[in-house]
Amino acid sequence: MAGIDLNSDMGESFGRWTLGDDTALLDVVSSANVACGFHAGDPAGMFRTVGYAASHGVTIGAHVAYRDLAGFGRRYVDETPADLTADVIYQIGALEGIAAASGARVRYVKPHGALYNRIAVDERHAKAVVEAITEVDPSLALLTLPGSVVGRLAEDAGLRVFREAFADRAYMPDGHLVSRREPGAVITDTTQVTSRVLRMVEDGTVTAIDGTVVKLDADSVCVHGDSPGAVTMATAVRKALEDAGIGVRPFAIEDGSPQVSTKAMKS
Amino acid sequence: MAGIDLNSDMGESFGRWTLGDDTALLDVVSSANVACGFHAGDPAGMFRTVGYAASHGVTIGAHVAYRDLAGFGRRYVDETPADLTADVIYQIGALEGIAAASGARVRYVKPHGALYNRIAVDERHAKAVVEAITEVDPSLALLTLPGSVVGRLAEDAGLRVFREAFADRAYMPDGHLVSRREPGAVITDTTQVTSRVLRMVEDGTVTAIDGTVVKLDADSVCVHGDSPGAVTMATAVRKALEDAGIGVRPFAIEDGSPQVSTKAMKS
Amino acid sequence: MAGIDLNSDMGESFGRWTLGDDTALLDVVSSANVACGFHAGDPAGMFRTVGYAASHGVTIGAHVAYRDLAGFGRRYVDETPADLTADVIYQIGALEGIAAASGARVRYVKPHGALYNRIAVDERHAKAVVEAITEVDPSLALLTLPGSVVGRLAEDAGLRVFREAFADRAYMPDGHLVSRREPGAVITDTTQVTSRVLRMVEDGTVTAIDGTVVKLDADSVCVHGDSPGAVTMATAVRKALEDAGIGVRPFAIEDGSPQVSTKAMKS
Amino acid sequence: MAGIDLNSDMGESFGRWTLGDDTALLDVVSSANVACGFHAGDPAGMFRTVGYAASHGVTIGAHVAYRDLAGFGRRYVDETPADLTADVIYQIGALEGIAAASGARVRYVKPHGALYNRIAVDERHAKAVVEAITEVDPSLALLTLPGSVVGRLAEDAGLRVFREAFADRAYMPDGHLVSRREPGAVITDTTQVTSRVLRMVEDGTVTAIDGTVVKLDADSVCVHGDSPGAVTMATAVRKALEDAGIGVRPFAIEDGSPQVSTKAMKS
Repeated sequence: MAGIDLNSDMGESFGRWTLGDDTALLDVVSSANVACGFHAGDPAGMFRTVGYAASHGVTIGAHVAYRDLAGFGRRYVDETPADLTADVIYQIGALEGIAAASGARVRYVKPHGALYNRIAVDERHAKAVVEAITEVDPSLALLTLPGSVVGRLAEDAGLRVFREAFADRAYMPDGHLVSRREPGAVITDTTQVTSRVLRMVEDGTVTAIDGTVVKLDADSVCVHGDSPGAVTMATAVRKALEDAGIGVRPFAIEDGSPQVSTKAMKS
Repeated sequence: MAGIDLNSDMGESFGRWTLGDDTALLDVVSSANVACGFHAGDPAGMFRTVGYAASHGVTIGAHVAYRDLAGFGRRYVDETPADLTADVIYQIGALEGIAAASGARVRYVKPHGALYNRIAVDERHAKAVVEAITEVDPSLALLTLPGSVVGRLAEDAGLRVFREAFADRAYMPDGHLVSRREPGAVITDTTQVTSRVLRMVEDGTVTAIDGTVVKLDADSVCVHGDSPGAVTMATAVRKALEDAGIGVRPFAIEDGSPQVSTKAMKS
Repeated sequence: MAGIDLNSDMGESFGRWTLGDDTALLDVVSSANVACGFHAGDPAGMFRTVGYAASHGVTIGAHVAYRDLAGFGRRYVDETPADLTADVIYQIGALEGIAAASGARVRYVKPHGALYNRIAVDERHAKAVVEAITEVDPSLALLTLPGSVVGRLAEDAGLRVFREAFADRAYMPDGHLVSRREPGAVITDTTQVTSRVLRMVEDGTVTAIDGTVVKLDADSVCVHGDSPGAVTMATAVRKALEDAGIGVRPFAIEDGSPQVSTKAMKS
Repeated sequence: MAGIDLNSDMGESFGRWTLGDDTALLDVVSSANVACGFHAGDPAGMFRTVGYAASHGVTIGAHVAYRDLAGFGRRYVDETPADLTADVIYQIGALEGIAAASGARVRYVKPHGALYNRIAVDERHAKAVVEAITEVDPSLALLTLPGSVVGRLAEDAGLRVFREAFADRAYMPDGHLVSRREPGAVITDTTQVTSRVLRMVEDGTVTAIDGTVVKLDADSVCVHGDSPGAVTMATAVRKALEDAGIGVRPFAIEDGSPQVSTKAMKS
C-alpha cells in the first residue's frame, strides 16, 4: 500500500498561552514538529505533547528556531554561524531530554519560521544548521523544502533529507511558495486542499497559481495546526488519502527500524 | 593513593557578559558544574566550556536552576512541581546535547543557587528534581549537601548521591553553612582555606564558627570560580592536597568506567 | 446617580499568543489593568490596548508583576526589595510611555497575580511596591484588596488607595477569597454573579461560603477577561448595575479632574 | 569657551553580570546612553546608573535596541515597523520612569548596536524609530551618525538631531566607520586617539584610513566604556580637550534650559 507522511507543528503553547490543539492533531498526523523553547514551547507543555505523541506512535521532530519568543521565531535574526550552531544543538538536546523522559526519541529536525525560510537560500546559516545536526546526532534526518540550499548541504554532509509539500499553500511556477503577503497564498477550501494533496501524493505535481503544472516530489505533507479549523482540515486531508488507499505513516527514518522507541509504541 | 574531587561552577557567562575564568579553572578542578541556560549560560558559551572540559578529562555536571536569568537563579521561584520537573529535564537534555556534540557525556546533576538551597529542605521541590533525573537518565548522579532532603529522596529513588563540602565557607555547629548575610560567612585567607580543606579530606571534620568540631563526610570539595582571586585560591587548594599525597580526581561515577567518553579523553 | 467602577485585566497577549478579547471588554469596563511586559504584554499589543482604552474613555492602570513570563506572574519570586522597587518603576514607566504615545495617562497601579497576593500580607514586598509608586509618580492610585498590608502602607505614604471586590469569587467569613484550589472558589452562574455584585454595591456586603454575611466596601468590582464566557459575564454584570440605576464609571482619581487626558477623550 | 559633548554607553550590566565601570565614566563624560533592558540593563542597575548620572549633572539618553539580550543587541532582528515603534516607545518610557524616580529626565535617544547601524541606512526601520520618538515625546533629541537616513527623517519630522564622532574608530574616506572586522578598525594608542579627537573638535576633520582628510561635523564624541582601559582612555580624551581650552558639556538640548532637572542638579 502506498503511503505518505503528514506533519504538523506542535507544542507551540507557552506558559499561560495556548496555541493549537495538539491532542486532536496527534490523532491525525504521523510526524510532530515539536517547538523547543526558542520561538515557543515551555518544558512542561513540550513534555505533555511529546508524551502524547509517543503514546500514539507519532514520530517526533525538533522544530528548532532563532531565539525569538516575542516574534515567535518569524523574524530573521542575524546570528553568527557559531552561535546558531550552538543554539540548534541546545534545542535538539533539550527536546531529546524531554523525549527520553517520555520513553521516546527525536528522529528528525525541521527548522521553524524565519530560520526555515532563511536556510532554504542562505548558505551561511544553512551550513550552521547542518553542522549542528551532524555534531549532536547524525542519525537525525532533516525535513525541508524541495530544492533548498540546506537540503543540498545536508546531503553533502551525509544526512538523510526528506522534502515536504504544503497542503494549503499556493505555489509559484518555479515551485516556491506564494508569499503569505500575496492574495491567494493560503487555500482555505477543504475540497480544493484535499484534491491538491491527492495530486501531490499520487502524481507528484501541483498546479501553480498561474495554472502551470509543477513537479513536486514530497516525502511529507505539512498541515497547519494553529488556525481555526485546522484540525477539521487536517482530518479531511487524512480521510481523502485513506479513501484513496494511501496510508498515513512517518517518512522512512531507517530501513526496518521502528519510528519511535519500543517503550513508546507500547504505552 | 587517597583522592578527592574538586568541583566548581562553570559556563556562567551569557552572551556579551563574561563571568569566571573557565579555562583556567578547568586546569584545576576535576568536576565542572556547567550552567544550562536558565540562570546563566548561552549555548555557544556552554559549548566552549564543555569542549574544554572534555578535552581536559574534567567530568561534566548539569548545573540546573530555576528559570531566572535576571536573578542568576538566586531567587526562589514558587513553581509547580510538574513545571519544575520539566524545567530540569529540559536543562539536562540541553546540556547533554551540547556534551554529545563535544564527544562527552553529562555524569551528574548539581542544582544551583536558590534551587540548591530549597531542595536541601523542601520535600515538594526536592521530589520534583529527583523525578526529573530519574525520568531523563537514572545513571546521572546527584551532587548535594550532606543531610539534605533531596539527597535522601534521591537515594530512595535509587540514584547515586555524592556530598560536597565548601572550601571557603564557614560552618554552623549543626553542619549547615553560615548564611552569606552573616559576618565571617566566607573565608578569604588562603592558608586558612587550604588547612580546612586538608582536615575535611583527611579527618572528615571541619571547625564550626563557634569552635565546635563537626563531622563532615564529603565526596567533593566545592571551590568558587566567580570571585576575584578564585583561580589562585583553587590552585592553592589543589597544590595543598597534592603536597599531602591526595590526588584530585572525579568522584566515582561508575566502577571501572571512564568519567568522560573515550573520544573526549583522547582529544 | 450612584456609581461603581468595573475593572478587568487587559493587554495579556504576547507576540503570537492571544489572551482575552480586549476590544470587547473595553466596551464594558471603566478601568483597564494593562499588563506591562513582565508577566504578559508585548509593546505592540500594549499599544493597541491602551489606544483602544483611551479612545473609549476607559481609565488605564499599570498591571505590574514579578518578572516571570513563563509563569504568567503567578509564581512568587523571592526578589530583594530594591530589585522589586526598580522592576515596578520600570514597568510603570514603560506603560506611561505607551500611554503618552496614545495621548493618554496611567492613573493607577494594580499589582498582578503572585505579587498581588504577596503584598496583601508581606510587609517587605508591599513596602517595595509602595516605594516604587511614590518615587515614580505619587499621583498614581493603588487598587488592592480591602484589609491588605499594601493598602495600609500606601495610605501611610500618602497615596490614594482604592479597594476592589471580585464579581465571581467566593469569599471566606473573614473577607478573604476562597483559594482557587478549593471547590466552589469561582462562581460561574450569571444570575448568581449579578445578584452578588448588586449586593456588594448597594449594601456593601457579600455572603461568604458558609452563609455568613460579610461587610465589603469596594470602590471597584473586578470582572475576569481571560476565561470563556468572560465578556458575556462582564456584560451581564454591567447591565444588571445599569438596570438598578448604578452607573459604571472609573473610581475617583482626583476631584474634578478628567480620568483620561483630554486628547484621549476626544479621539 | 568652546565646548564639546562626550558620550558613552552605560547601564549595560544585567543582574549578576557587570559590564563597564559606570561610576568612573560618569565623572568623565557629559552624556550617558543608558541601556533600557532590551539588549542590556536590569531595572535596579539602570536605577543606580541614572541616579549617579543625575547627581553628577550628566545628561541622560535612552540607548534603545532590538529585543536581543542573548546577542547584546548586536544582531539585526527583522521586526515589523509597528513592532519596532512600540518596542522603542516601551524602552523610552521605562527609562523615563527610572529617571523620574531619580528626579531626572531623559533628554535624547541614541539607538544601540545593530539598530544604530541599520537605521543609518534602512528607511523602513529608521522611520519606525522616528515615529516612536515623535509619539512618545517630541522634545527628545536624536543622537546619530553624520549623514544617516534616520537623521534626515528625524529632522524632517521636526526632531532635533545631533551627530557624533568616534574617538577610537578608524574612518573610511567617505566618512563611514571602518568595519570592526577589518584590521585597524579600532585605535588603541592614547596619544593618537587624543590628537584625533582634538582635530575632530577644533578643525571638524579626521584623517581616514587611506590618509584622506575627511570633514566631520560632530556635536558629540563617543568614548567607549566596556573595554579594558576604557576609563583611562576617556579620561585622557577629556584632559586633552580641557588642556586645549575646550570644555566638556552636554550637547545643547534646549536654549537656556537646564540639561537635567533642578532636583537632580542639587542632589
